[in-house]
Amino acid sequence: MADESRVVCDIDLDAPGIRSGTLQLPLSTDVSAWGRLLTPIVAAVGGAGPTLLVTGASHGDEYEGPLAIMRLLRGLDADGLRGRVIALPALNYPALTVGRRLSPLDGGNMNRSFPGRPDGGPTAAIAHWVHSRLLPLADAVIDIHSGGSTLRFVPSAVIHDLPDAAQMRATRELAQAFAAPFTQVLTELDSAGELDSAVEEMGLPFLSTELGGGGGVTPETVAMAYDGLRRCMRHLGMSDEAVPEAPATRFLNVPDTGYLMALRAGLLEPVVEVGDRVEAGQLVARLYDVDEPLGEPNALRAPHAGVLVCRAARGGVARGDTVAVVGDDEARS
Amino acid sequence: MADESRVVCDIDLDAPGIRSGTLQLPLSTDVSAWGRLLTPIVAAVGGAGPTLLVTGASHGDEYEGPLAIMRLLRGLDADGLRGRVIALPALNYPALTVGRRLSPLDGGNMNRSFPGRPDGGPTAAIAHWVHSRLLPLADAVIDIHSGGSTLRFVPSAVIHDLPDAAQMRATRELAQAFAAPFTQVLTELDSAGELDSAVEEMGLPFLSTELGGGGGVTPETVAMAYDGLRRCMRHLGMSDEAVPEAPATRFLNVPDTGYLMALRAGLLEPVVEVGDRVEAGQLVARLYDVDEPLGEPNALRAPHAGVLVCRAARGGVARGDTVAVVGDDEARS
Amino acid sequence: MADESRVVCDIDLDAPGIRSGTLQLPLSTDVSAWGRLLTPIVAAVGGAGPTLLVTGASHGDEYEGPLAIMRLLRGLDADGLRGRVIALPALNYPALTVGRRLSPLDGGNMNRSFPGRPDGGPTAAIAHWVHSRLLPLADAVIDIHSGGSTLRFVPSAVIHDLPDAAQMRATRELAQAFAAPFTQVLTELDSAGELDSAVEEMGLPFLSTELGGGGGVTPETVAMAYDGLRRCMRHLGMSDEAVPEAPATRFLNVPDTGYLMALRAGLLEPVVEVGDRVEAGQLVARLYDVDEPLGEPNALRAPHAGVLVCRAARGGVARGDTVAVVGDDEARS
Amino acid sequence: MADESRVVCDIDLDAPGIRSGTLQLPLSTDVSAWGRLLTPIVAAVGGAGPTLLVTGASHGDEYEGPLAIMRLLRGLDADGLRGRVIALPALNYPALTVGRRLSPLDGGNMNRSFPGRPDGGPTAAIAHWVHSRLLPLADAVIDIHSGGSTLRFVPSAVIHDLPDAAQMRATRELAQAFAAPFTQVLTELDSAGELDSAVEEMGLPFLSTELGGGGGVTPETVAMAYDGLRRCMRHLGMSDEAVPEAPATRFLNVPDTGYLMALRAGLLEPVVEVGDRVEAGQLVARLYDVDEPLGEPNALRAPHAGVLVCRAARGGVARGDTVAVVGDDEARS
Amino acid sequence: MADESRVVCDIDLDAPGIRSGTLQLPLSTDVSAWGRLLTPIVAAVGGAGPTLLVTGASHGDEYEGPLAIMRLLRGLDADGLRGRVIALPALNYPALTVGRRLSPLDGGNMNRSFPGRPDGGPTAAIAHWVHSRLLPLADAVIDIHSGGSTLRFVPSAVIHDLPDAAQMRATRELAQAFAAPFTQVLTELDSAGELDSAVEEMGLPFLSTELGGGGGVTPETVAMAYDGLRRCMRHLGMSDEAVPEAPATRFLNVPDTGYLMALRAGLLEPVVEVGDRVEAGQLVARLYDVDEPLGEPNALRAPHAGVLVCRAARGGVARGDTVAVVGDDEARS
Amino acid sequence: MADESRVVCDIDLDAPGIRSGTLQLPLSTDVSAWGRLLTPIVAAVGGAGPTLLVTGASHGDEYEGPLAIMRLLRGLDADGLRGRVIALPALNYPALTVGRRLSPLDGGNMNRSFPGRPDGGPTAAIAHWVHSRLLPLADAVIDIHSGGSTLRFVPSAVIHDLPDAAQMRATRELAQAFAAPFTQVLTELDSAGELDSAVEEMGLPFLSTELGGGGGVTPETVAMAYDGLRRCMRHLGMSDEAVPEAPATRFLNVPDTGYLMALRAGLLEPVVEVGDRVEAGQLVARLYDVDEPLGEPNALRAPHAGVLVCRAARGGVARGDTVAVVGDDEARS
Repeated sequence: MADESRVVCDIDLDAPGIRSGTLQLPLSTDVSAWGRLLTPIVAAVGGAGPTLLVTGASHGDEYEGPLAIMRLLRGLDADGLRGRVIALPALNYPALTVGRRLSPLDGGNMNRSFPGRPDGGPTAAIAHWVHSRLLPLADAVIDIHSGGSTLRFVPSAVIHDLPDAAQMRATRELAQAFAAPFTQVLTELDSAGELDSAVEEMGLPFLSTELGGGGGVTPETVAMAYDGLRRCMRHLGMSDEAVPEAPATRFLNVPDTGYLMALRAGLLEPVVEVGDRVEAGQLVARLYDVDEPLGEPNALRAPHAGVLVCRAARGGVARGDTVAVVGDDEARS
Repeated sequence: MADESRVVCDIDLDAPGIRSGTLQLPLSTDVSAWGRLLTPIVAAVGGAGPTLLVTGASHGDEYEGPLAIMRLLRGLDADGLRGRVIALPALNYPALTVGRRLSPLDGGNMNRSFPGRPDGGPTAAIAHWVHSRLLPLADAVIDIHSGGSTLRFVPSAVIHDLPDAAQMRATRELAQAFAAPFTQVLTELDSAGELDSAVEEMGLPFLSTELGGGGGVTPETVAMAYDGLRRCMRHLGMSDEAVPEAPATRFLNVPDTGYLMALRAGLLEPVVEVGDRVEAGQLVARLYDVDEPLGEPNALRAPHAGVLVCRAARGGVARGDTVAVVGDDEARS
Repeated sequence: MADESRVVCDIDLDAPGIRSGTLQLPLSTDVSAWGRLLTPIVAAVGGAGPTLLVTGASHGDEYEGPLAIMRLLRGLDADGLRGRVIALPALNYPALTVGRRLSPLDGGNMNRSFPGRPDGGPTAAIAHWVHSRLLPLADAVIDIHSGGSTLRFVPSAVIHDLPDAAQMRATRELAQAFAAPFTQVLTELDSAGELDSAVEEMGLPFLSTELGGGGGVTPETVAMAYDGLRRCMRHLGMSDEAVPEAPATRFLNVPDTGYLMALRAGLLEPVVEVGDRVEAGQLVARLYDVDEPLGEPNALRAPHAGVLVCRAARGGVARGDTVAVVGDDEARS
Repeated sequence: MADESRVVCDIDLDAPGIRSGTLQLPLSTDVSAWGRLLTPIVAAVGGAGPTLLVTGASHGDEYEGPLAIMRLLRGLDADGLRGRVIALPALNYPALTVGRRLSPLDGGNMNRSFPGRPDGGPTAAIAHWVHSRLLPLADAVIDIHSGGSTLRFVPSAVIHDLPDAAQMRATRELAQAFAAPFTQVLTELDSAGELDSAVEEMGLPFLSTELGGGGGVTPETVAMAYDGLRRCMRHLGMSDEAVPEAPATRFLNVPDTGYLMALRAGLLEPVVEVGDRVEAGQLVARLYDVDEPLGEPNALRAPHAGVLVCRAARGGVARGDTVAVVGDDEARS
Repeated sequence: MADESRVVCDIDLDAPGIRSGTLQLPLSTDVSAWGRLLTPIVAAVGGAGPTLLVTGASHGDEYEGPLAIMRLLRGLDADGLRGRVIALPALNYPALTVGRRLSPLDGGNMNRSFPGRPDGGPTAAIAHWVHSRLLPLADAVIDIHSGGSTLRFVPSAVIHDLPDAAQMRATRELAQAFAAPFTQVLTELDSAGELDSAVEEMGLPFLSTELGGGGGVTPETVAMAYDGLRRCMRHLGMSDEAVPEAPATRFLNVPDTGYLMALRAGLLEPVVEVGDRVEAGQLVARLYDVDEPLGEPNALRAPHAGVLVCRAARGGVARGDTVAVVGDDEARS
Repeated sequence: MADESRVVCDIDLDAPGIRSGTLQLPLSTDVSAWGRLLTPIVAAVGGAGPTLLVTGASHGDEYEGPLAIMRLLRGLDADGLRGRVIALPALNYPALTVGRRLSPLDGGNMNRSFPGRPDGGPTAAIAHWVHSRLLPLADAVIDIHSGGSTLRFVPSAVIHDLPDAAQMRATRELAQAFAAPFTQVLTELDSAGELDSAVEEMGLPFLSTELGGGGGVTPETVAMAYDGLRRCMRHLGMSDEAVPEAPATRFLNVPDTGYLMALRAGLLEPVVEVGDRVEAGQLVARLYDVDEPLGEPNALRAPHAGVLVCRAARGGVARGDTVAVVGDDEARS
């Protein structure tokens, strides 16, 4: 039951103006008997209009979200705002503080923890509060992800192929407004526990992203997130601010047949970069065994023609790691 | 004394032909009473000519070295080779197996461990063997580095400003042959323990590199190392192989006044990319405190005009981390 | 179902006399395929009379409990005893062996684990056995806590404000018999998983304590627990032993508005000691940032007038830690 | 050689006025290739007069030092100051950030690391810089210690019995000025690696302290350090500030025969408090085995008559731990 | 629901012939955002006949299973096979890769994880797939265990005393075919979560083993498993291969009164070896305290007459560890 | 210098009678500011005669030493003893308490730490005290080793081929007295840091052993050590006690050409047992890759004819691990 949440939000989400505060979750550990996990939250409340929920750092090694969101928040003017922005720039705050994908407190993957549990670990308890308290307030949700430490993506928005036509249309329009260079359309929803599916089940437009990766950011990927958020606000009628135009986003289908996996550990030499076009069977990467420096590397080849959407970001891969993902333009697939 | 080394090399470094083997160092641990650290080594011995020593993965999170070296070795033909290539594609093998900068066995930084100690930890013992057994065989040494997990560089070769004019000329010529987009010329030698200084003290030409970073590689940076090595071999008269031409390298001076440091931990938004030109005082990065999402970020500014040579690769930095380094073209500085 | 418990108690809890034994819980780990967690238990069975359950080390860094209980047990004379004492001096035995609040086996907080689960981790399995097998035997329960490593309390008994008047009266009388210098009356019951609520729901008088803290004991705080237990036994009619008299306990209300929290990490200088009277807004502690040794410390002030009941015990606090708690005398509040 | 130090101090220690900065030591780790350890330093430079070096947090779980030093520094007025105060409130900065005795970077015990080594680990490198660069500037040194996490002391200054009469007199006068409740006079100098002996060998007056312990502070122990430092400055002629008077310090001899040790692990019940007088053979503490809750505890007795100077602060002790130390008044011993 | 499993098996279990592949379970970690746990599986499909499921390394420090199974698989000839062998030589693959009893991913004990959970940790998810997908295909199941790192057994097969006479007869016949030197008949089923009970509840014959221990194998124990598996296949009509004959297995009852436990940690000197006959009260082992090298060791004695079935394999035992287990021949017990 | 040792021995090694005590070494850690490492020592002093030094647990996972030594000590009668036994049953005490080869305090391998250093870590400091204080008292030294967790040996004494004929004869006679089933004669001395060489350099007879392995003991291997020690005492004229006779020991040469190493990690199936005779090229073990369960295992073959002296004890081996060692009878080699 929602009322059981042990999380307390210490700011008013309704009063006009802009303020920051924290979600307070009691946490009793060996090093703090009566401690609290404090997750930053900002509410920017303007005039009549929709509520946009913006989240970042669902994974703690993805930085475009918190950086672009803080840049956005500092530029907001409550007087000129129509509607409300509620922002959680550090959704998995403990993970962000250590720069790791998962929470160091309980190993929780925030984006597999929805709808959450009030009596679960910290990750599930925060997910539960967001699900039960914030999602009902929202008219649209944007969750900024990137590849994190171990993956590298074409800079892209991500949406799902939804059965409801009106919701799908609203979602595609949001992606068009965001205007990332690419927009991935994921056909199937193997997304148990994702914020994505939690929002989509409520019938709301939901936009996620995969901007870069490798555990860092570039000036360009932060700008994509920052400008994309502002374009979405304008699209939703929340602002009249001028934002730099961007070329139309390129929609890609990403089927589940496009995944390439390493069957053994090794050093990985990518020979195709994300965004490059590949033919079926084309060499995508070589996997070397440094114990046999004169041995023949393993050749990893594209399972079908298309565009390289994602590749492993690090030079070393383990058995079972995803090496690359091939999608394709909507028109072609 | 050199003879005391506990390292045994199990291949012949002199006999004609190409072969791989290991440096064997006894290692007694809780999980292996009588174990050995095995470091891969390759000897490619052709006709009369110089000996080139090539090393990679001196730091275990820098992958251009092992990848390009293995690609080079597989293409070598002992019959066509004039002279000898001795290659250690995984100089700090334990570090490479875990993808970390330092050895997980003893915390050793291989590139601060020269001339090594035969009775030291594994890192120092390997350094000692390389220093006492391989360097005396070498006519030139190339050590492939990149930025590793935490730094990102303009793709560059790295040389030092040496007092001996002939050695300096040979070194610059080697850098010109390698033809990385940039070549950093480091004026002062605060390089106690580096392989660099160990080689330079022997009067040999030495080339290091900083190719990319972020803990991964790109197809381009691996190609730079691979082609650069082949161009150097041709330059040294070891091969007549055709290698793609590259534009002339751009020499940069990197003074010790060019370093920007974070005085507190935070999330880092770079606003200038490596290779970009900056003016003195220009904003280079913003440092945010996510605990104060509406607070003003710290502005980090260029200490002088020049070119951004290096920046922090990750989105999170700690107190004391290097945020950026500014160098400048030789002509200008 | 209670019968499913995998815990076996290896002593008779009913036969006259005094004996010690263990609760045996099978535990299969990497270092012991067929191991058992053995939790010490003592039964002292005398003539007709009530059963008093006494527990200590529910948190493994709180030592007054096990010390005073063992001192009590060694002095018991089954012949002179009316009724029965069942004692668990080390309720969270694995935590006590490492001197930490939580169990090193499963991270379990024993006092958030009731009513337990027979198929849960060791902490929940022990809690379940105590709840299902011991609580039904008890007429009163005393659980000795103190501040542990990270908190420091006015030496106090702790009771809750219970809705049942008779139970409340019995509970207050038990606190008066115990005669700690202070008795905290906690108004609301945010005590899911506590032994407290588990016992109170059974309608029994329950007394907890908070005696000192800082991870150690003083001769005085051990004596308070030891004498308090003996006074309670006399009060319950179990013994006629002479025990040193103590001044009447001072009842304090502790509302949830009395908590002071650190919003950032720092070094904490308390300027008020536990037991001191404070006015609303009075400076309670200063929080310093040693990175800015000339900077102004954060001033933490009393939220309302009253008595300082608790403060952080260590010199360093983290973001979210409780710095101080202010209660007040019943008459005043 | 002193000049080899890799430490850079980024402030001027000579120019009039008050300023804070850092000692910068390069540190290359898996998580920061080009990082630096930054140790805070403050210089308060007034008119003509002596130089006082003040240090705290030589052990990272002793907080009176940094707290009292920062409180002192904020109150300094360079105009009214005769001479110079150089302060290192966090001598073992990495240890202080984790609240542990030893450095988490290299396990170094700062107070066993003097005179240090420029090419050693971070602890030795900082010790070397302090020894080679700061001690030559000093006319007197005060190093604030307390019992840390595991010991509890009578609040005391600590001096050594020095062979040079003039130095001994100056040292005793400094202790009298500091006016802690007690002053321990340690007869023998088994203090290899201590800052103490490094300073004393230079012929300077040196004062250390042991103020409280248990990993925290009290308002009183911070005030003792704060007031003691100010009284010492007045005594040295550096200030005319009025400071609260304190009773004359009580000098205690602490011979090496006064140590009581635990021969096995157990739970420790102290029955005498620090500062209490004990007779030879008097029970000082009981050591319990919770596995045998009805067993007889081990009785630990005073080896000779005197005053309890120190005891174990935690409820649990390990084999070999110091349980108590008995000293005695100078007149009696 | 079985269909929810996130595990994908990448080979055909029905097509004639022999092939190996993997069970693929998505696994998202800090070091691999999109990783997979790959558990090896082999299907050998011959002509008409029963399906035998063979598993090894349910505990990752028990090696007879994977070694004998791989030896068996390499010798199989699909043409000569009547029926099908499905083999999982590394059921708890992550545990096997680190040589520990439990999974390093989630601490899971595979043989306490049945029937598993599709949404649980990796251990439970694999157990669930095996339970829901493989067990329904099986006509008999053989699960090869041994003592692992911490126990040493008489080489034995293990069966349970089942209420169904037909199932019991089939099970005993399978044990007779396997022909280990001993066969343990466990009377009671405290086997919640075991593969054993999961299979037995389906009415199938199930054979487990305990072959040796100590974390290693001997040529003999691997041969027992290898030959035993082949004899069982012949017994089930799946093969006509000639296998070396073995003496009739010796059936032992192992009651729950036969367990000897250490009540404190110490060094253990066994004085009886597994397989030896003991009388009631006979000395089985001495437990020494090395802190008291002249003290009397603890004498551990046989609780009843019989045969030593199992003993602690390591020289050091902890409080609660099983020291020895005494069973007896069926005829005698 | 020997006098600098910080170790204190708290018993008299000269007074007649039998007593146990400890070597006390100060140890300052995060969890004990003033702790001590206490290493057990026993002195049994009888009438005129030689001094025998007996040590065990130089590696903490080798148990025959401490078990047999404690059994020996309990049976000693000072009245009947001619000479003196000084025993250190737990030479690397911290390692023994955790059951690991190396010290958990400093990673020290005790048998690579001689002659030790008074200012080194705990392992080196204990080695130094033994070397500088005990060895000068000794007339003969016996150091009981076994294979530990990771190796398994033919039960054997171990001596070195010494250049001094008289010392060699005395040493062989000691080995004949000990009468292990085998005696290994190691020809070369690559034994820097071993207790062996330290003693041998003093001209004393020194006997080591390798009894079993696998991290545990058998009744037989403990008896070999116990009886062997008693036979050596009788041989040295220290006792007239009757000891069971044993067959003459079988001397084996173990050349450095006899080592077999794993070049990659895998599961190891030994097909020859220690003590078995092998021909040159005979299959000794198979190394499997469980990722390729149908793949051909690596065949590891005997490098020359002889006797299998040692093999890997665990089922899993890592790259570089010793898989087997082949020696041969003196007569044959």
